[in-house]
Amino acid sequence: MTTPGTTPEEIVAALTLEQKAGLTSGADFWTTKDVPGVPSIMLTDGPHGVRKQDAASDHLGLAGSVPATCFPPAVALGSSFDAELLVRVGVALGEEARAESVGVLLGPGINIKRSPLCGRNFEYLSEDPLLSGVLGAALVNGLQSQGVGGSLKHFAANNQETDRMRVSADIDERPLREIYLRGFQRVVQDAQPWTVMCSYNRINGVYASQDPWLLTSVLRNEWGFKGLVVSDWGAVVDRVASLSAGLDLEMPSSSGRTDAELVAAVKAGTLDEAVLNTAAARVAELVAKAVAGADPCTSYDVEGHNTLAREAAAASIVLLKNDGVLPLAVDAKVAVIGHIAQNPRYQGAGSSQINPTKLENALAEIRALTGTEIPFAAGYGEDGASTAGQKAEAVSAASAAETVLLFLGVPASQESEGFDRADIELPAAQLELLDAVLAANPRTVVILSNGGVVRLSAFAGRVPAIVEGWLLGQAGGGAIAQVLYGAVNPSGRLAETIPVRLQDTAAYGNFPGEHGHVRYGEGLLVGYRWYDARDIDVSFPFGHGLSYTTFEYSDASAVTDDAGITVTLTLTNSGGRDGAEVVQVYTGLAGSAVSRAPRELKGFAKVHLAAGASQKVQLRVRREDLAYWDTRVSAWTVESGSYTVEVGASSRDIRASLAVGVAGEPIRVPLSVNSSIGEVMAHPVAGPIIAAAMGSGSNAGLMSDPSVMNMLASAPIGRMMGFPGSGVEPEQLEQLLAAANAG
Amino acid sequence: MTTPGTTPEEIVAALTLEQKAGLTSGADFWTTKDVPGVPSIMLTDGPHGVRKQDAASDHLGLAGSVPATCFPPAVALGSSFDAELLVRVGVALGEEARAESVGVLLGPGINIKRSPLCGRNFEYLSEDPLLSGVLGAALVNGLQSQGVGGSLKHFAANNQETDRMRVSADIDERPLREIYLRGFQRVVQDAQPWTVMCSYNRINGVYASQDPWLLTSVLRNEWGFKGLVVSDWGAVVDRVASLSAGLDLEMPSSSGRTDAELVAAVKAGTLDEAVLNTAAARVAELVAKAVAGADPCTSYDVEGHNTLAREAAAASIVLLKNDGVLPLAVDAKVAVIGHIAQNPRYQGAGSSQINPTKLENALAEIRALTGTEIPFAAGYGEDGASTAGQKAEAVSAASAAETVLLFLGVPASQESEGFDRADIELPAAQLELLDAVLAANPRTVVILSNGGVVRLSAFAGRVPAIVEGWLLGQAGGGAIAQVLYGAVNPSGRLAETIPVRLQDTAAYGNFPGEHGHVRYGEGLLVGYRWYDARDIDVSFPFGHGLSYTTFEYSDASAVTDDAGITVTLTLTNSGGRDGAEVVQVYTGLAGSAVSRAPRELKGFAKVHLAAGASQKVQLRVRREDLAYWDTRVSAWTVESGSYTVEVGASSRDIRASLAVGVAGEPIRVPLSVNSSIGEVMAHPVAGPIIAAAMGSGSNAGLMSDPSVMNMLASAPIGRMMGFPGSGVEPEQLEQLLAAANAG
Repeated sequence: MTTPGTTPEEIVAALTLEQKAGLTSGADFWTTKDVPGVPSIMLTDGPHGVRKQDAASDHLGLAGSVPATCFPPAVALGSSFDAELLVRVGVALGEEARAESVGVLLGPGINIKRSPLCGRNFEYLSEDPLLSGVLGAALVNGLQSQGVGGSLKHFAANNQETDRMRVSADIDERPLREIYLRGFQRVVQDAQPWTVMCSYNRINGVYASQDPWLLTSVLRNEWGFKGLVVSDWGAVVDRVASLSAGLDLEMPSSSGRTDAELVAAVKAGTLDEAVLNTAAARVAELVAKAVAGADPCTSYDVEGHNTLAREAAAASIVLLKNDGVLPLAVDAKVAVIGHIAQNPRYQGAGSSQINPTKLENALAEIRALTGTEIPFAAGYGEDGASTAGQKAEAVSAASAAETVLLFLGVPASQESEGFDRADIELPAAQLELLDAVLAANPRTVVILSNGGVVRLSAFAGRVPAIVEGWLLGQAGGGAIAQVLYGAVNPSGRLAETIPVRLQDTAAYGNFPGEHGHVRYGEGLLVGYRWYDARDIDVSFPFGHGLSYTTFEYSDASAVTDDAGITVTLTLTNSGGRDGAEVVQVYTGLAGSAVSRAPRELKGFAKVHLAAGASQKVQLRVRREDLAYWDTRVSAWTVESGSYTVEVGASSRDIRASLAVGVAGEPIRVPLSVNSSIGEVMAHPVAGPIIAAAMGSGSNAGLMSDPSVMNMLASAPIGRMMGFPGSGVEPEQLEQLLAAANAG
Repeated sequence: MTTPGTTPEEIVAALTLEQKAGLTSGADFWTTKDVPGVPSIMLTDGPHGVRKQDAASDHLGLAGSVPATCFPPAVALGSSFDAELLVRVGVALGEEARAESVGVLLGPGINIKRSPLCGRNFEYLSEDPLLSGVLGAALVNGLQSQGVGGSLKHFAANNQETDRMRVSADIDERPLREIYLRGFQRVVQDAQPWTVMCSYNRINGVYASQDPWLLTSVLRNEWGFKGLVVSDWGAVVDRVASLSAGLDLEMPSSSGRTDAELVAAVKAGTLDEAVLNTAAARVAELVAKAVAGADPCTSYDVEGHNTLAREAAAASIVLLKNDGVLPLAVDAKVAVIGHIAQNPRYQGAGSSQINPTKLENALAEIRALTGTEIPFAAGYGEDGASTAGQKAEAVSAASAAETVLLFLGVPASQESEGFDRADIELPAAQLELLDAVLAANPRTVVILSNGGVVRLSAFAGRVPAIVEGWLLGQAGGGAIAQVLYGAVNPSGRLAETIPVRLQDTAAYGNFPGEHGHVRYGEGLLVGYRWYDARDIDVSFPFGHGLSYTTFEYSDASAVTDDAGITVTLTLTNSGGRDGAEVVQVYTGLAGSAVSRAPRELKGFAKVHLAAGASQKVQLRVRREDLAYWDTRVSAWTVESGSYTVEVGASSRDIRASLAVGVAGEPIRVPLSVNSSIGEVMAHPVAGPIIAAAMGSGSNAGLMSDPSVMNMLASAPIGRMMGFPGSGVEPEQLEQLLAAANAG
């Protein structure tokens, strides 16, 4: 145990070199080493539950674990658009971790969903960095309020599984900052996670696990991160380089091999012992926090957590389409079709796989809710394939029913950590089944179970309703029943666009790269930013989701202050049911001096309103969220201008468009011989002087021709001045530019 | 004069240091310096004519020049798909240059049309590297057959005008090699241009003018270039760096300033004098070739060249659409509308602007051809804008005619070297005029004049015929008349796709970059490769062009040999007129181990056939054109496999699809600890050994689970082996891998 009053630095100072080295790597797969003054703590997978492995299990980290509540995976939670809900889920996760003596839960994962093919998209929140950041911070705040640490992962740009341990994510500076790091920055600054987990991949050629720019310059120096950086399991390539770069804790154990490398490096003078001391102190500090938060006597409310898991699941379901067939009356004559209705797909495969405390299935829950032995046909099997008999049985059930509830989804074998999907199609047999069922009964509601988006354009126009059920965790079955029958009014919104075709997606052609590199060629235009910039039709846009009631927006206004923009509106539940609306605020800057997406999410609020009620809603757009990363000065910069502030019910359902003036920060890029003639001419001091000088040259007449100047404007002045007859000598030019910069 | 029998090296050896330095930069804007043994020669702009400036003109290189035949600019010549024609145009250019005592004509320009917005697209041939390379080589061969040197430009990746003197074209290795350099490689290897002109821009951060990789490693060492590298005018930033990198001649004169820098660098020992000697010898060698080719007594056949210019123009016109209204009968009652019909846009602005020997306009040529005073209305003015009176006059003329010939086009002010276009729209006033004319007379043929493609989707479906007239040079007016009236059967084909919208284009969002960088994010998928890969509708596809006759393809076959593929087919002119077809061969490799476009042009032939005639056509696909650039081994590599060979009348009008087996070159990438488990398992020697070793570990059971292995397959074996329970020790692994590599 740590002695109260002893600082981590003091504890570390008392350790041998070997003990310090040992402290910065795992004792085994899941625990840190016990050294004098620093007991061992356990870190286990999350993120959507506590995956604490059985003692009897393997050491590869893949097999059985103790029961824990399987909350909805991130793909669902992201769709809740509900930060308060994520705080509560975080609290519950903290309670379970504490009850299992787990010091750090390895989550949340907030990587951007760059391509729908990413095999691990079910573990990530959104294609948008603001949404990922706000929800990620909420989860961390909830979790850490219970004395259990979070681990913000996978830092960074781990947006695919293909070749994930080697591939270099080749990303330009602006998209890296504005899309791929921005959510991490938000969580670090708003929630200070105890740990950040580096990713496996490289970024622009450098392993994230040994990138001093990423792990120290950006994370600590720029963002002010105070916690510990832990490796993803097996992400360390060069332990000495990692430690020097700012990676504090290697996991899992290297059986002492890399500890010995650290010791040797310190002895050889190639590693400063102070660096090791810092890392070891951070481990000691993390352990102290975990120990302070630990309580071996606590338990948690298994039933209560199941209820919360169900609430979260219900809040995450997205009603994509509804021509009025939903909600169902309790006495509606329905048939349930689809293997998944009885054998739920409720989480993805890989390290996040939870052993649930219980498991609901939609069929049983529908039967329980309605009190009726609803007819059921499997239609297809676990692998998504369908026999003739299964199909015939399904068609027969469909024909006999008034309304069909058809459960379709991606087979579990296709969605896992470790590999990406090959396409975004539902299994062909399921689509054939859908056609057959639809032919028998056009009143067919499709309920989807999938970790990554699937193509819906094959049938979206032909069915009366589509319920996007993602992977909803252990209580998803009940949540689906509640939504279908209106016990819960759906309020989920798409945290990622559902495209018409895979070929329409931004990363198509570049994803997943080859031979160790993947080019993020779409730059800033990820997700809805891409579809909007290129004006591409989508099946369902980012932010979309229907309700059983309707909402009206009125009196929208926006005012600027030094810290950002306040958007105010009146929201009215104009329908007949209580419900929740997700009010979204997007900004844009037409005529910007830099590339921008047409609109970017800068604020959102989930507002619960009773039928007929009105409420004044206020949303804040932080000034820093208006900034772009200026590559000339390597700084976040707010551009002056009249910003468009759009208030919408989705990214393509804008209810009010406002304009607000924002005073930005001026960028002063000094003039040089490499400045273009156009840039120099536009300069208040240098422009007239240079123009006069050029007017004296032998080409003066020509230079005064606007079409000639149009052609020459982009030429660097230093090179043009060297031309015969330019009228300005190089030495003269240097003096003029110096004067302009001083002026 | 050079003394016969004296080698360039010998001449240079006799010069002073200052003379050698001086020899490697211009004497003024257009000539090299006269030093003992090396007379001055003149280099002037092309590429589609000789732009030799008047002695009395400015020295900026922009004003008046002596008359010369203005052949069709590259935008037109590329559409001819006719290498034999380009040889003849090259010969004629050589005759004119020789007659004007010009030693080197600065062309052809073969940069890839990456975006339709590039302001200089009218100076480039195609969006495809093979077409650019084959036609570029033909032009150089023709030109140089007359003892005049070509200058292959702009080397390289100069695909935009915006910030062209500073911008870094940031391009990944494969697109750089396979798209942007491939055409240059073809011309160098097939035609050995006397000079290559480096471009202004940077490539991946390095100025082309001082990039040793580009100018020496690739150009000379890999491709075997034997000539001289000249700077684009003003492209030199650091003369010493340029010379060291392989740039032999700086143009224009730096008034001695940078010559002095070379002298100082040699004296200071920072520049090896041998490097200067080599550059100076290359200048001396170029001069010797120019002197040998010169003949001050020659003239050229002005009328004959105008006739050739007209033939080339007619062969380059692309009949995009024709519902039967064309060709017109000589006695058809037509009205000609459009300022451009009388005031042709026949070339673009900037350094390539020729002072033509004569200038045809379509209106006069139509009147001459028909012998009729065809009614005419301008409809709009020089700037593309239309007055109410002009519009009314046009509508009146349209109403009175049976058929309208409506000439539309991009105003000259919008297409120039030095800046890019802001959009691909025809002027709004012209589109309004079109609507008004169409309302008055639906039988309206649109004839276009434009250097870069324009959006046609606004009206393509509403007009009976569209003639794409590009910029056709001085005799384009006659050529248009000939095509409209069937005196020439159109045979041009699109060398670039006409997209439905600017937003559909590959570079949209990345082009033209900002703050000194432009990311080529679309990678290999340029032009039709993009539209095909993403299955995007286009207005008119690459390779498209109609004829007044029809062609049938039969008996297509393809056989492989060591040097490539021979494609044979029978082509039949199945219509009632003599005509020419452009047979196109595209290849693809489904299931390739690397990213590829669905189809790539690998051969083409323009075949002239009398009505009713049949001909056996044979096309060769060179084996090297099947190769991709393998980034693992930095080499062109032919992959083994069953290639699809498509024979088509356009990229989207495939008449035969064949499969041929090609035996490729095996790639041996040695196994290492960084090889993935999947790669090691697939290795014939290492796979079984490692599998056995892993089978002995404590996780053996788990590792034999296919779904677990699916997840772990991408993990580098070295890192997984370090895990507890893996069954293999690191030292053991190294030995196993070494054995596998040796085996």
